[in-house]
Amino acid sequence: MSKKAMTMTQKILAAHAGLDYVEAGQLITGNLDLVLGNDVTTPVAVKEFRKLELTKVFDKNKIAIVPDHFTPNKDIKSAEHCKLIREFAREMEIVNYFEVGQMGIEHALIPEKGLAIPGDVIIGADSHTCTYGALGAFSTGVGSTDMAVGMATGKAWFKVPEAIKFNLKGKFNKWVSGKDLILHIIGMIGVDGALYKSMEFTGEGVKNLSIDDRFTIANMAIEAGAKNGIFPVDDITLEYVKGRTQREPKVFKADEDAEYSKVYEINLEDIKPTVSFPHLPDNTRTIDKVGEVKIDQVVIGSCTNGRMDDLRIAASILKGKKVHRDLRVIILPGTQNIYLEAMEEGLAKIFVEAGAVFSTPTCGPCLGGHMGILAKGERAVSTTNRNFVGRMGHPESEVYLASPAVAAASAIAGKIVSPEEV
Amino acid sequence: MSKKAMTMTQKILAAHAGLDYVEAGQLITGNLDLVLGNDVTTPVAVKEFRKLELTKVFDKNKIAIVPDHFTPNKDIKSAEHCKLIREFAREMEIVNYFEVGQMGIEHALIPEKGLAIPGDVIIGADSHTCTYGALGAFSTGVGSTDMAVGMATGKAWFKVPEAIKFNLKGKFNKWVSGKDLILHIIGMIGVDGALYKSMEFTGEGVKNLSIDDRFTIANMAIEAGAKNGIFPVDDITLEYVKGRTQREPKVFKADEDAEYSKVYEINLEDIKPTVSFPHLPDNTRTIDKVGEVKIDQVVIGSCTNGRMDDLRIAASILKGKKVHRDLRVIILPGTQNIYLEAMEEGLAKIFVEAGAVFSTPTCGPCLGGHMGILAKGERAVSTTNRNFVGRMGHPESEVYLASPAVAAASAIAGKIVSPEEV
Repeated sequence: MSKKAMTMTQKILAAHAGLDYVEAGQLITGNLDLVLGNDVTTPVAVKEFRKLELTKVFDKNKIAIVPDHFTPNKDIKSAEHCKLIREFAREMEIVNYFEVGQMGIEHALIPEKGLAIPGDVIIGADSHTCTYGALGAFSTGVGSTDMAVGMATGKAWFKVPEAIKFNLKGKFNKWVSGKDLILHIIGMIGVDGALYKSMEFTGEGVKNLSIDDRFTIANMAIEAGAKNGIFPVDDITLEYVKGRTQREPKVFKADEDAEYSKVYEINLEDIKPTVSFPHLPDNTRTIDKVGEVKIDQVVIGSCTNGRMDDLRIAASILKGKKVHRDLRVIILPGTQNIYLEAMEEGLAKIFVEAGAVFSTPTCGPCLGGHMGILAKGERAVSTTNRNFVGRMGHPESEVYLASPAVAAASAIAGKIVSPEEV
Repeated sequence: MSKKAMTMTQKILAAHAGLDYVEAGQLITGNLDLVLGNDVTTPVAVKEFRKLELTKVFDKNKIAIVPDHFTPNKDIKSAEHCKLIREFAREMEIVNYFEVGQMGIEHALIPEKGLAIPGDVIIGADSHTCTYGALGAFSTGVGSTDMAVGMATGKAWFKVPEAIKFNLKGKFNKWVSGKDLILHIIGMIGVDGALYKSMEFTGEGVKNLSIDDRFTIANMAIEAGAKNGIFPVDDITLEYVKGRTQREPKVFKADEDAEYSKVYEINLEDIKPTVSFPHLPDNTRTIDKVGEVKIDQVVIGSCTNGRMDDLRIAASILKGKKVHRDLRVIILPGTQNIYLEAMEEGLAKIFVEAGAVFSTPTCGPCLGGHMGILAKGERAVSTTNRNFVGRMGHPESEVYLASPAVAAASAIAGKIVSPEEV
């Protein structure tokens, strides 16, 4: 019997299930390279784990706990949650527990620390765990109970996803970045356009995407309902991974004749700066169709767009300028290392001189947590990933998703504008 | 009739009341040079002001509004409060409204902006408004209703305080700073030791106190119950004020034969690093009597100790070191300018490399607001000003007040220690 063709995702899953072949729809149990949780989801996972009455986790090196959502502790409740997971991490001797001050936003931190590399299978009790697909890993968000079982057994079950192929060619025009591409795609296929499927990005255009572009794109696969988003491994990937881990990257390639439920051809040259209007990420408009939208706040950061590429382009626009006087601008680097790099490069100085907040890494405002919550009727342009009703604060506030370039330009103008306009 | 002698505070009050002479206990109405509010107190003041049905404030240049306590907006409630005061500031064309990103902690910001200078009378709807006594101004905390009336009329009534004199000589030993002196004094006289009185600091030792030391000392006068704390104006004061304002500093001096209810002689050489144990600032121990106190968090910042002197000494101790792994260390510069200066001098880099949070200015954890709240049973060493029950979070958490030097040393040790020990 000849071996049937598989997508990149299917190959990774097969290898981790000890199988030669898997097909879409098949239920498998896979070995996990990393089990991840944050301060919102880990407390629940710990409670579930305790029910198993185990004295240790499956592998203290393969669990990462990152208190990033409501930290530095927003309130007593978040302080209690963090205390619970800190004590659990100490008791279980979890190596990759990242205390406030040593940390960052989980999906920026995990790749930086070499905890996600090509070929890995990773689950995280956070929906944006799909970020590591940027590195050619299979990674996906799960619930806290799955995290608990993952910590106990090092395994998780998966229904093997079918895949949609996005065949990329060309390269972005000035001011256009990965965020615009993924918003464009979500606008095109809808927030359920890839439901339980893999989004496999491929084609000669991939080489024109920086690793940070890829993180942004894979990060938002979940916003089209996808199980995961994934990129082929190339020199850019391997360069990024180099020196971050002792483990050997495993490179999986989709078979030429793998089956896809749909194939999209996208020329990166055609992508314009794109904005998602309230209250869904698929409610997109290109920047020329935005009209007059006055704003009260700009947020640049999050697991989607808090990396060096993002800060650099924002700084290039804000340099020597002042943010609009009616605005608050909150810039949150993804990790402490990104914070340091942004200082060394002079970006932090540009931000503060422009009148922006440059603060310690936290998910904060993205999920209406803290550090930039909106009042009734207020509008924010944000580089984050969700603009659901009330996402950043009051149920009658509005979030417009955009790239760091559009966000920075809008910070100067006081309304949503193209970087060309400032 | 010969003119009777007055204290420095009495002289300032007399001049602002249009009187040649005032005496302790007298009720006067004084003209205000500045009326100040923050995001906690101004919303209430605005509501009171609205009852007066006025279309403008007494002087749009003499009001300052600084949203610093729960900003960047902690939650919807704080977002609504900030929106209310922002709209009021716009409507009244208040010149010194400081938006998030352009601002800092009010009592660090106001002097920096030249809005408090020698000889001023200032009221602020915040108890630590007494800070500006460092510059030889009379400044004191009031309620929101007084703020409202102040904004309407430019006047406030005062009961002229009697005074306690602190006659300083000598200079601090290494690692000792203004914080240790004021904690020592509060420990000596008690949290009601200066109730409704002026604390007038004088003597040849004053010249050995930096302006930042003086801010710290005047700031905590309220923790001894004082109406105000005040320093004579000298070259150090005038050097600080220079270039910050167009207004002319007015230098008032206590009469040689002014009456004081009490006089303390203090040799700065005798002051040791001092820690206030829970749950009152007067529960002080010198560092050699602290014993073994393990801690979970260190906070360096606040209107008391978030200035350059404070950050410099903390950085000198943290340089090249790592904070203890069981600790969170949160360092909050007083203003955006201090933030910039700390970056330029390399202090911010030292903090982040040591594993500390270095974040945007906010009062945050000092009052249990956000950005570093304690869980049940947790202990913090903090350079802030109050260690009341539950001040930084859970009612069963504890705050130990100390200088930036002791706080930084404790951050490395994981327990309260002298800077000598790390």
